[in-house]
Amino acid sequence: MSAHEAQDPEFESRVRRSFDRQQFMTTLGATLARVAPGEVDIELRTREALTQQHGFLHAGALASIADSACGYAALSLMPPGAAVLSIEFKINMLAPAAGDRVLARGRVIRAGKTITVCWGEVIAHDGDRERTVATMVATMMTVRDRGIAD
Amino acid sequence: MSAHEAQDPEFESRVRRSFDRQQFMTTLGATLARVAPGEVDIELRTREALTQQHGFLHAGALASIADSACGYAALSLMPPGAAVLSIEFKINMLAPAAGDRVLARGRVIRAGKTITVCWGEVIAHDGDRERTVATMVATMMTVRDRGIAD
Amino acid sequence: MSAHEAQDPEFESRVRRSFDRQQFMTTLGATLARVAPGEVDIELRTREALTQQHGFLHAGALASIADSACGYAALSLMPPGAAVLSIEFKINMLAPAAGDRVLARGRVIRAGKTITVCWGEVIAHDGDRERTVATMVATMMTVRDRGIAD
Amino acid sequence: MSAHEAQDPEFESRVRRSFDRQQFMTTLGATLARVAPGEVDIELRTREALTQQHGFLHAGALASIADSACGYAALSLMPPGAAVLSIEFKINMLAPAAGDRVLARGRVIRAGKTITVCWGEVIAHDGDRERTVATMVATMMTVRDRGIAD
Repeated sequence: MSAHEAQDPEFESRVRRSFDRQQFMTTLGATLARVAPGEVDIELRTREALTQQHGFLHAGALASIADSACGYAALSLMPPGAAVLSIEFKINMLAPAAGDRVLARGRVIRAGKTITVCWGEVIAHDGDRERTVATMVATMMTVRDRGIAD
Repeated sequence: MSAHEAQDPEFESRVRRSFDRQQFMTTLGATLARVAPGEVDIELRTREALTQQHGFLHAGALASIADSACGYAALSLMPPGAAVLSIEFKINMLAPAAGDRVLARGRVIRAGKTITVCWGEVIAHDGDRERTVATMVATMMTVRDRGIAD
Repeated sequence: MSAHEAQDPEFESRVRRSFDRQQFMTTLGATLARVAPGEVDIELRTREALTQQHGFLHAGALASIADSACGYAALSLMPPGAAVLSIEFKINMLAPAAGDRVLARGRVIRAGKTITVCWGEVIAHDGDRERTVATMVATMMTVRDRGIAD
Repeated sequence: MSAHEAQDPEFESRVRRSFDRQQFMTTLGATLARVAPGEVDIELRTREALTQQHGFLHAGALASIADSACGYAALSLMPPGAAVLSIEFKINMLAPAAGDRVLARGRVIRAGKTITVCWGEVIAHDGDRERTVATMVATMMTVRDRGIAD
């Protein structure tokens, strides 16, 4: 997982603008914590409205922020005018997600012309303690000329 | 994908009770549409609060209901007193999810003593028209004696 | 998983010709059992040279024939001159693979312009008895104009 | 991916003995290059018998050595007497696998009582040049008392 260079000098504002259009992130209460070339972090504060039957964060909530983190990590490396689509992702749940907040970190493993592969981690923070609670691999597609932006 | 038989005669009320404790399903607006041995359907009405940047349902929202549908399909076949945990799932997005509502169908492929493998489909309904928009494979674990129920 | 129509009337000879170039299939002892639009079956006779440490077929051998079955199911629907590449696959092992032979069945779930998603099953045959021992989901890409054929 | 400690002081000989029983590794020509707690590398020399239709290493051959590397990385951390089974794995192909040889590196991400999650990478070596050609996530299960060893 090496360092990347953005093709689009406006990559950060472009990612932020697109994130702001993801109404589901607002519904979840997720915020964009960091944007760098090939690297995007999304933070989510823990609350009851996001839990499963045992009181932990629902795997789908973790998957949602990890998918967006991976997708925006991919988008940050795409040429201006291209949009990103999630083709597929796989998530492994390593431990119950509790604590104050979770951070989903999306990282580009390989950026190709059409296909970008990303790695994601979800880390639960409880005060000073950290624990990786989920890992993701996601395949993203660069879409051009379909009348959709970012 | 054959027919299954429940070990627990109370499987339906047990699934419904557990689903009602998943506060994230309420936050999404998802409802339990059908419970049968090894088969659970969850319905979600489309609304702006669940969308991604292009106005379609966010992949994470689809993954959330498909994960719950798969998990409860697995739970429906587990012995009384056992609980279900998602170990991992993989979802492929086949088409943009639009329409009035989506239905996630979870089906047990194989129920083992410890591991249950499920197949999930998310179908978008637009009036009378149907379209499969995502498919999932999920691995679930039967958990006993850990002080958690269902 | 509906019926499909081939764009290339020569789809069968094209699949068979490409399969014959996969020297790894010969090394495994795998043969092409059936080719139809969007549906390809590959057969493998069980032998010690393909086993893991407990004497069952190695998961990698199952994955190899399931990947080829899925890839050729995808290729059977592609336009003339296009080639197929495996982007990713996921396989679940449901039971130990024993018996006389295994059959990998690849089926196209959705054929898009660039991305084709396939479902695969590996079925172990022991005399008259059948058992599904593995399931796969594979994402394939249609490649044009890269100087590679089929 | 932190450092791990083996529970079984004989972990290395145990992994080597089990690997030697995987006849499929011999058929492929794969060798055990390195064994450490939670870390196993398997090497495979490139040859025509392992290729797909375009002359590159077949994705199934890469998956086979990555699955074994992940499985043995998991086994290296298991208690004496336990055996390892692959529940599922997912592999992404990042680039065509060519060169003199490939190295599959399996690393434990999290070792639980029943479930171990591993990360795998396949790196192609062409003289001094290296290239990551595939990444894997694998879920392994610890099996006790089933009459199978290692």
